[in-house]
Amino acid sequence: MTGLFITLEGPEGAGKSTNRDYLAAQLREQGVDVLLTREPGGTPLAERIREILLAPSEESMSADAELLLVFAARAQHLAEVIRPALARGAVVLCDRFTDATYAYQGGGRGLSPERIAILEDFVQGALRPDLTLVFDLPVEVGLSRAAARGRLDRFEQEGRGFFEAVRNTYLARAHAEPARYRLVDAAQSLEQVQTALRALLPEMLERVRG
Amino acid sequence: MTGLFITLEGPEGAGKSTNRDYLAAQLREQGVDVLLTREPGGTPLAERIREILLAPSEESMSADAELLLVFAARAQHLAEVIRPALARGAVVLCDRFTDATYAYQGGGRGLSPERIAILEDFVQGALRPDLTLVFDLPVEVGLSRAAARGRLDRFEQEGRGFFEAVRNTYLARAHAEPARYRLVDAAQSLEQVQTALRALLPEMLERVRG
Repeated sequence: MTGLFITLEGPEGAGKSTNRDYLAAQLREQGVDVLLTREPGGTPLAERIREILLAPSEESMSADAELLLVFAARAQHLAEVIRPALARGAVVLCDRFTDATYAYQGGGRGLSPERIAILEDFVQGALRPDLTLVFDLPVEVGLSRAAARGRLDRFEQEGRGFFEAVRNTYLARAHAEPARYRLVDAAQSLEQVQTALRALLPEMLERVRG
Repeated sequence: MTGLFITLEGPEGAGKSTNRDYLAAQLREQGVDVLLTREPGGTPLAERIREILLAPSEESMSADAELLLVFAARAQHLAEVIRPALARGAVVLCDRFTDATYAYQGGGRGLSPERIAILEDFVQGALRPDLTLVFDLPVEVGLSRAAARGRLDRFEQEGRGFFEAVRNTYLARAHAEPARYRLVDAAQSLEQVQTALRALLPEMLERVRG
């Protein structure tokens, strides 16, 4: 048993959490062992690191420090949660993972993908998601949905160019590796999105049972 | 001007802080610009990371997560404090640096030096301390001095074998690179230690003025 590692990617406001819960319910109806988690975070220690990453601060955080914090939280999350769940054969549904690092710290902050890859290999070894759902949304739609939720975190305070770069990075990664990525048009109605997700279920069930 | 980067290493109870202050006073008497700092920490953000590293926790921290947190704090400290001070020509006196990572996470926790070196190169580029003072102390002396200070942090709760490995790593590194390291016998009286430190002053002054 090696389980199935599915990650959900996209900006705030794209419906990742709602649809992660929906997907989990659909899989559980089929008798599948599902673990829901998120990044950065997923364990109490990793959530403490998440707080440092997201809290607005007077001191500007160096790009390297931010990247190392992201991967510190990830190392803890992998050791405590993700690897044990995959080892027992579960489907892990994770709200954001290393694609978000390439999108936010790479595309957004301008860190080179080569530097991110050094830490990805360092922390993950050969582990990569089996399937990554990219919830794609025009930048202005995501920003207005996030703003409607109230106070902005350190990332949500970034400007429009930052989020354009984030979106473009997600799209470029999805196009470069179609076997792993599925693009979901998150600007559609929730019903339409969930119809699209149901269409992915047979493949997921086959892979976790195969 | 490139300043002079001096690190002080050794266990709790070896007198690093007291002697760092003593050394700073001696250098300042000679008109030298001195910056005192410490690791992990040295900036407000890095001190928040230090709190996570040192706080006793129910959740065991994975060795990789600990290592990445150490280097996240270091990246921030380098960007905000150490590199700017060296650039203005100051002597930086830093209580612990990457030798402590090799000693505690490497020797103590058993992480391979090769993995530590990947992150050392990632974060520091070519930067290494110009001079490292290793305050050496028999393990039992350090432990009884640290215990006398009260509540133990997550590292101080480790067993004797851990601290033997820490000490042996410091000694091995000092012996392997005598040009950079100076061993200080910290079991001596404070007067004797400070006499030994005064003997190092001419070399420090020559290097920072040269």
